[in-house]
Amino acid sequence: MDPRRITALADETGGEELAGRIEFLLEIDKLKSVLRRSLLVDGSRYENTAEHSWHLAMATMVLAPYAPEGADITRAMEILLVHDLVEIDAGDTYIYDEAGRADKEARERAAADRIFNLLPADQARRIDELWQEYEARQTPTARFAYAIDRLQPLLLNAGSNGTSWREHGIRHSQAAGVNRPIGDALPLAWELARTLLDHCADEGHLADDRPVEA
Amino acid sequence: MDPRRITALADETGGEELAGRIEFLLEIDKLKSVLRRSLLVDGSRYENTAEHSWHLAMATMVLAPYAPEGADITRAMEILLVHDLVEIDAGDTYIYDEAGRADKEARERAAADRIFNLLPADQARRIDELWQEYEARQTPTARFAYAIDRLQPLLLNAGSNGTSWREHGIRHSQAAGVNRPIGDALPLAWELARTLLDHCADEGHLADDRPVEA
Repeated sequence: MDPRRITALADETGGEELAGRIEFLLEIDKLKSVLRRSLLVDGSRYENTAEHSWHLAMATMVLAPYAPEGADITRAMEILLVHDLVEIDAGDTYIYDEAGRADKEARERAAADRIFNLLPADQARRIDELWQEYEARQTPTARFAYAIDRLQPLLLNAGSNGTSWREHGIRHSQAAGVNRPIGDALPLAWELARTLLDHCADEGHLADDRPVEA
Repeated sequence: MDPRRITALADETGGEELAGRIEFLLEIDKLKSVLRRSLLVDGSRYENTAEHSWHLAMATMVLAPYAPEGADITRAMEILLVHDLVEIDAGDTYIYDEAGRADKEARERAAADRIFNLLPADQARRIDELWQEYEARQTPTARFAYAIDRLQPLLLNAGSNGTSWREHGIRHSQAAGVNRPIGDALPLAWELARTLLDHCADEGHLADDRPVEA
């Protein structure tokens, strides 16, 4: 049955609000087909953005005891569930892709306008607020969420022997650079992240451009 | 890098509690490789349990205005994020598989004991409580969560022309039976679900065993 037909039946059953919610739920199914650059821990395939978002929500729950003062755990979880919905239209922009990042904001803003507005106005506004809080990274909640969104792929990349890093020729200094914000919200996790990056460079999973010690 | 090595480095960095949390996060990555019986809305492949759990958490957010009195939305979201973790060991038991359901409880209890207990004791207990609340279906929160866990595959099956139903020879009466609990918590969604099941039977996506009207 065409998703538009399902939405039309929802409209007949419960009016415009139910129809909008059902249309949104059918539409976001597409996030399961957006592939990221990280492989699963077992290296079997690339991760998709929907399962990534689930993993981040789980990490929020599990790492909550380390959250910075003032971070709202439930809100961080909601932020991480919705923060990549824009990738349905805009695709996943690789964190090391400088060119792709140039127009990322415009592409994602247009995607947010289309996708969130399938919902009734109050819910669309709320999800937009969660997404914008994440993008701005000003609140302790957003910084906590961002740290988790950096730590999780690092764990996957370390677990899958840096296959993704090697495929893209990523260097230790680049990985250390993009992951440094982990330290703003989760100092202990950043300490672990640095150790993992060093071990990955030692083992050749990450191009080693560390300065030679005297 | 072997996940055990990552866990060992986490132990050196932050002690047993950090190590347990990191080990758990690496372990639950396996939920992305547990396949369910539903296809994605576009019919391209089977859904996995991790992305399914994300979709349910999103549905909780979106359908919150219809939640029954006394349901705790945040808790329902947490329940749905964790409720299928046991499938890492126990696999996905098809809702129409009567034989498989006979020992489901014992298999899943053993899985919960192994997987949740990777975490520090207080977090393991909390996740076990969420899972048990879901399984017991006594609270408004658990009934709301269960209704969502039934509605989402119905939307996927309807969207993908009942391919999964047809593969397994599912009849209209069976689908109506397993999905009836949607009505306990979300009467409006159940009304839509019944309409969808009728249309799917009309179109031959679901074996039509409805009584012939006089």
